[in-house]
Amino acid sequence: MASREFSLIDNYFKGKGHQRKDVVLGIGDDCALLSVNDNTLLAVTTDTLVSGVHFLADMDPRAIGHKAVAVNLSDLAAMGADQAWLSLALTLPDANDKWLAEFAGAVIEVCDYYGVTLVGGDTTRGPLSVTITAQGKIPAGKQLTRSGAKPGDWLYVTGSLGDAGLGLALLQGREEASSDHREYLINRHCYPTPRLLAGQALRGVASSAIDISDGLASDLGHILKASHCGANLFLDKLPLSQALLGTVSLEAAWHYALGAGDDYELLFTVPEAQKGALDTALAHCGVKHSCVGQLRGGEGISYLNHGQTVDLNVCGYEHNWS
Amino acid sequence: MASREFSLIDNYFKGKGHQRKDVVLGIGDDCALLSVNDNTLLAVTTDTLVSGVHFLADMDPRAIGHKAVAVNLSDLAAMGADQAWLSLALTLPDANDKWLAEFAGAVIEVCDYYGVTLVGGDTTRGPLSVTITAQGKIPAGKQLTRSGAKPGDWLYVTGSLGDAGLGLALLQGREEASSDHREYLINRHCYPTPRLLAGQALRGVASSAIDISDGLASDLGHILKASHCGANLFLDKLPLSQALLGTVSLEAAWHYALGAGDDYELLFTVPEAQKGALDTALAHCGVKHSCVGQLRGGEGISYLNHGQTVDLNVCGYEHNWS
Repeated sequence: MASREFSLIDNYFKGKGHQRKDVVLGIGDDCALLSVNDNTLLAVTTDTLVSGVHFLADMDPRAIGHKAVAVNLSDLAAMGADQAWLSLALTLPDANDKWLAEFAGAVIEVCDYYGVTLVGGDTTRGPLSVTITAQGKIPAGKQLTRSGAKPGDWLYVTGSLGDAGLGLALLQGREEASSDHREYLINRHCYPTPRLLAGQALRGVASSAIDISDGLASDLGHILKASHCGANLFLDKLPLSQALLGTVSLEAAWHYALGAGDDYELLFTVPEAQKGALDTALAHCGVKHSCVGQLRGGEGISYLNHGQTVDLNVCGYEHNWS
Repeated sequence: MASREFSLIDNYFKGKGHQRKDVVLGIGDDCALLSVNDNTLLAVTTDTLVSGVHFLADMDPRAIGHKAVAVNLSDLAAMGADQAWLSLALTLPDANDKWLAEFAGAVIEVCDYYGVTLVGGDTTRGPLSVTITAQGKIPAGKQLTRSGAKPGDWLYVTGSLGDAGLGLALLQGREEASSDHREYLINRHCYPTPRLLAGQALRGVASSAIDISDGLASDLGHILKASHCGANLFLDKLPLSQALLGTVSLEAAWHYALGAGDDYELLFTVPEAQKGALDTALAHCGVKHSCVGQLRGGEGISYLNHGQTVDLNVCGYEHNWS
């Protein structure tokens, strides 16, 4: 499940009812972890995208198909899982052949790209929404969870942050950008890249991980809460794209990076002793990584710019109720 | 996936894209079957219930919660799987505490009853719908599929048929019944019983199986198509409850049994040589079974009443487009 999942699941379902012994990790992380044999854990995640909530109602069906798959694969990446299978539940107001062909084409294309097989599904009539359940496999004991971080661990992110949030703002007419930047930023919003190779490479290296769906501040908060730590975040180290910096002010860029969400980059922590191993592990994953902070005792996030404390009021992107 | 799934999934997704070698059975049966080790198959099914399509908009949230879990467990039963885990994706127009508490209570209660653990979920804002992915385990090679039936095999169903369809008609004011019958029939519609013990007991005994979600005629059609057979159906052997027979005419009862759907009983075939084993296998499953026909060569369903051909025009219950 994505971090965007809100407290309703926790309040009404978490820890309730019978807990099977083969459930290694239940509700509350990016995926559930289920024991299927002595050597392998199954990682399972479910995410729903609702029209008008998680994507604009007139969004290109190819983007909806791509994004629905990508956000679920991103949850697998955040656990360090090897992606394997998808189930699709599609609810549609009517059977529009062109829409369906484009949506399905995008779903199949992303699945093929990542070597995932669509194994089942259900199609129903109703208001447009897409629910995907993705499954992957992890060598037992190698999973990345939110709860393994310790004070002193370094905080990293993959890729660049804030692009997807600005892309949405451009689509909604809240911001304007040059045509080059605009295309890049909107693509980052519509076609996120699940960091599967990076997640797998982080097994045995990272002490915790999560994917950034709600914004760095909010998703870091999940790691801090689960790991009982606080963090210093280095604003001057945030990886911000030329397109983001070329379109909005530095302070606005910080806010997009920290609060806008939908980046689907990985946020992870690495113990000091593993910093060397990290560069080797991620050398061939096709995505850069940046050290953006360090965990400490206490709680909450302190924002620093070139070593100076900055008072920021970051509002996380909220798809849902909280 | 339930048999109610319609051809959209087949048309746009089935057989498309990369097929992993660990996918033993993909789109097109009650569950997908995935190989997780040499001895075990994972059975996975996804079903969505949409308000106003699969349940009445004002339906008791306990019934919605029960039914959403039960119809998915019924798909596991139809494969002969041992039920294990559920993921829940709930889309809700607003956060109504009373509604949620009742819905969640019912979900947990059914899970507990069947020893299933809810391992994850996603809750989003939008028009009411519930998507559940259920998973179970099957000893490798013991799965029940739709495609194993042969001419000469006998056709069986568990329980009684048509009750749920009449229950819906009562809720919609299309029929009237005595208060005793009314309560029984509406409960059969709102609180279906997944035949898990029966499905498991049928491993090694039945040659094919499916659960009855769209009505006997429609779901038998799926077995006949997958197994390349025809069938003679004995109308005088249909298991019809006293409540059904006490409320509508015999011919109307046949139509409810054959076409109304939502029974979630198992429909299965048994080779002549296994008929003795069948009674032993199902002796302690808490549900009766009835022989309602026999497979033959050719195709399609012939309806017989005490050996005489009857010309029936059965319309399957269609939740969706076809």
